[in-house]
Amino acid sequence: MADQADNNAAAPTVGVALLGMGTVGTEVLRILQEDAQDFTARTGGPIEVRGIAVSDLTKPRPGVPAELLTDDAVGLVKRDDIDLVIEVIGGIDYPRTVVLSALRAGKSVVTANKALVAAHSAELSEAADSSGADLFFEAAVAAAIPVVGPLRRSLAGDRVNQVMGIVNGTTNFILDAMYKRGASYDEMLAEATALGYAEADPSADVDGYDAASKAAILASLAFHSQVGSSDVHVEGIRSITKADIEAAKAAGCTIKLLAICERMVDDNGAESVSARVYPALIPLDHPLSSVSESFNAIFVVAEYAGRLMFYGNGAGGNPTASAVLGDVVAAARNIVHGGRAPGMSTYADLPVGDFGSVRTRYHVDMVVDDRPGVLAEVASTFSGQGVSLKTVRQEDAGDAGARLVVITHHAAESDLESTVDNLKNNDAVKAVNSVIRMEGN
Amino acid sequence: MADQADNNAAAPTVGVALLGMGTVGTEVLRILQEDAQDFTARTGGPIEVRGIAVSDLTKPRPGVPAELLTDDAVGLVKRDDIDLVIEVIGGIDYPRTVVLSALRAGKSVVTANKALVAAHSAELSEAADSSGADLFFEAAVAAAIPVVGPLRRSLAGDRVNQVMGIVNGTTNFILDAMYKRGASYDEMLAEATALGYAEADPSADVDGYDAASKAAILASLAFHSQVGSSDVHVEGIRSITKADIEAAKAAGCTIKLLAICERMVDDNGAESVSARVYPALIPLDHPLSSVSESFNAIFVVAEYAGRLMFYGNGAGGNPTASAVLGDVVAAARNIVHGGRAPGMSTYADLPVGDFGSVRTRYHVDMVVDDRPGVLAEVASTFSGQGVSLKTVRQEDAGDAGARLVVITHHAAESDLESTVDNLKNNDAVKAVNSVIRMEGN
Repeated sequence: MADQADNNAAAPTVGVALLGMGTVGTEVLRILQEDAQDFTARTGGPIEVRGIAVSDLTKPRPGVPAELLTDDAVGLVKRDDIDLVIEVIGGIDYPRTVVLSALRAGKSVVTANKALVAAHSAELSEAADSSGADLFFEAAVAAAIPVVGPLRRSLAGDRVNQVMGIVNGTTNFILDAMYKRGASYDEMLAEATALGYAEADPSADVDGYDAASKAAILASLAFHSQVGSSDVHVEGIRSITKADIEAAKAAGCTIKLLAICERMVDDNGAESVSARVYPALIPLDHPLSSVSESFNAIFVVAEYAGRLMFYGNGAGGNPTASAVLGDVVAAARNIVHGGRAPGMSTYADLPVGDFGSVRTRYHVDMVVDDRPGVLAEVASTFSGQGVSLKTVRQEDAGDAGARLVVITHHAAESDLESTVDNLKNNDAVKAVNSVIRMEGN
Repeated sequence: MADQADNNAAAPTVGVALLGMGTVGTEVLRILQEDAQDFTARTGGPIEVRGIAVSDLTKPRPGVPAELLTDDAVGLVKRDDIDLVIEVIGGIDYPRTVVLSALRAGKSVVTANKALVAAHSAELSEAADSSGADLFFEAAVAAAIPVVGPLRRSLAGDRVNQVMGIVNGTTNFILDAMYKRGASYDEMLAEATALGYAEADPSADVDGYDAASKAAILASLAFHSQVGSSDVHVEGIRSITKADIEAAKAAGCTIKLLAICERMVDDNGAESVSARVYPALIPLDHPLSSVSESFNAIFVVAEYAGRLMFYGNGAGGNPTASAVLGDVVAAARNIVHGGRAPGMSTYADLPVGDFGSVRTRYHVDMVVDDRPGVLAEVASTFSGQGVSLKTVRQEDAGDAGARLVVITHHAAESDLESTVDNLKNNDAVKAVNSVIRMEGN
């Protein structure tokens, strides 16, 4: 609990350990110092940073009191004068060790670490529950856009059926630029890298793993069930071509990398959860289609609230610091006034459904023989697997044959997969150029 | 505190009094009953409705246990077996009496009553603070769109500079239909009434008072200061004509009724708050411009988080019930586990600034004499008050003279008002047809 030693003050001081002094850690420290009076007023007691853990003690850190620095994070979080731990290190294994130590010692933790929360939420929750500490992680999903709070609290009296979001700014920047400027994936990745939107190794972003961590967290919160990052079906955007973007335009759509969390109900009424990340077409009149550049947005469909959308900056030092500090105030209030935030509730305990049973629509772009009877043959390949067609567009592809673009009605992934296998084995089908899902009715 | 008499159960039951059985009350009761197991799991203990206050005991209420009904709301909320009060009566004076009784008796209150909260927040907060009860009112602003929670909690570590919202569905329906269908205000008000979007007496909506209550609440939360509904400058939409909508289109804008809460800083660095409601032009590329039909959206600009937007259904029985029930879970959790939600923090205590010092842009539509020198004369009338012009468009208005439409740069309300007075006294100006503000850079 909070240090009551300085008890000439009306309220106890909340002692904070800051782990990590990268972009976010530096901003968090600066804002806590500059706006100290606001934090005291909003918390009910002063917040004091009493230790800062860094990996390299020799690096010059202007403005940071040297006596606060340590490279022993585990030792720091266990100190008696620390009530609250802010983890902005990144990575998984090392912060896991430190955060677990903190929670088990009864210290509340605020983390911005999506990979950690997505991979180890059960273990972290258990540690928090065992000591009664709070675990906050608003910044782990879409930075300052409040979505963890709304799912945990505002929608706690509702029943969420779907969460669909653009939760990775790098890939949204690339896809938005491809759409608007007609550029290729490689050109736009190079530009994103030059602008600092993409890392030197872009795979966490472009292969969808960053979005998958967020999908796991969103699905867990939305459905009160345990969903880890390994439960998420992931496909990235490397395979999206200029031709795909052109085809999306022709269908009145754009292409976005979506994190989709859905409540699935089978024919017997049994519920399960789907969490998946892939690039998909969405119609231009859907609110997510106009989310441009590196912005993020999360679209939620709830039983009673209806359709909600949250929009803003999903990354960056300042927006992430804003989310961290909102959580710091909440955690510090509980330390000063008592009380505990809602934990990672998993009471509903829904299983993660098989990806093959996910139902969505598909945009299939093929080259076929240009002769009578081929369209009927292709159509029956779809209907043979129970996949019905919504629109069909055929155009002359010159010597190559005919280009055939179909959009299906909702169908199961497994049925679509069999259909594509059969198409590839069909002599009349020269090539299946792309299969892209279509979301957002 | 919660009834511990049934203490063979692991957690205490939270006893609820429901005040009001209109659309929202009926939905709240139904959902609490149907989803009882979910509420128990999310709260940590069962929630039991133990009394329902209505004004007319003789009205048949199928499905509602008669023994729960009472017309003595004050008596009900004081009962020992009541821990939590849900107020969905509406009105001001009567619910004020009941809610104050409940809070003073230490019972937490969840209310959807924007007029009550906007008019009496100081008194209600004081009553809550005196007994340590919680006061929740997410449903008072924009129903299920989480905005009270984000301002109170998620942005508690940030500095909000502006909140600008479409917070009244009726007027948005009317203005959106005028824009899209070229219809008149009277035609669209009639349609809104027929569809049930507008009340028989539409003045609370169309004259801006409903939006003003919400602006007062949003300004109080955003700036940690006391802003009441009487502090809000209010103008409604009755005067908006087809010609205004056409002029907005010509300027690349639409017209929306906006609730605007802004931090103002004067030349000496002194801060104050502006809270105002009026119809304004906003550019078509601003996220608020595409909010259609009766949807609501709130746009927030914060120092660190940047630009955020929250979008959804801002009214209706189900969305309001969703917001009420989210608050019920939070209040019940605090009853079961201890702790207290952040109150109406007013520590910053910023004064409400003079409306004359508000700075915005203006779209001024005039008819002037069609002769040489008039444009220079009109331009100098603006510049004489320090108002500079951004765009000027002149067109032939036939026998009437020339139509002159100007858009100004940012200028103070008081300077614009003097300018318009001077224009009206200028012989070259035959008429000032409309002055509409322009928001959203």
